[in-house]
Amino acid sequence: MTQFDQVSVVKQANVYFDGKCVSHTVLFADGTRKSLGVIFPASLTFGTAAPETMEINAGHCRIRLAGEETWAEYGAGQSFDVPGDSSFDIEVTEALDYVCHYR
Amino acid sequence: MTQFDQVSVVKQANVYFDGKCVSHTVLFADGTRKSLGVIFPASLTFGTAAPETMEINAGHCRIRLAGEETWAEYGAGQSFDVPGDSSFDIEVTEALDYVCHYR
Repeated sequence: MTQFDQVSVVKQANVYFDGKCVSHTVLFADGTRKSLGVIFPASLTFGTAAPETMEINAGHCRIRLAGEETWAEYGAGQSFDVPGDSSFDIEVTEALDYVCHYR
Repeated sequence: MTQFDQVSVVKQANVYFDGKCVSHTVLFADGTRKSLGVIFPASLTFGTAAPETMEINAGHCRIRLAGEETWAEYGAGQSFDVPGDSSFDIEVTEALDYVCHYR
């Protein structure tokens, strides 16, 4: 599936970390929400409110969830889950194109 | 209007000029298309295929259309038209949040 149909999209982008992350918010009829975005090569820490699933369309990164010592690598076609009210460290080695699903 | 309703949105972003421009494509039921994006501070030249209207949500820029000598300034709440099969120079002085309408 290359697109989301019958959705609403917020006109204004979300820009984080001085432009290292740019996303647009998509609203679904069932009340759920996703963000579509790009993260450029950088080492960043993202906080979460709701639990998230990060689905990677393109690019490559390493992830370390809060409280863990080990890093895991993810690339195109893979995804990882992050608990709510938490955070994760991310090292993007090749620009990421992602869909973030808020659960 | 802060959002577009009953649309499709392409999951993968468009990244131009080494990340200076990031956009997502929105498809409308009437067959028209817009892109929602951000342009970070830079001096760039964009080419057009279809005629475009650039609507600025936030930020500030100077624009010079192909074949013109004068620059015009645009900011939040303003828009400008660009002919098809043409180009324009843009100097973004404050990160632009825009909607590009393809006409």
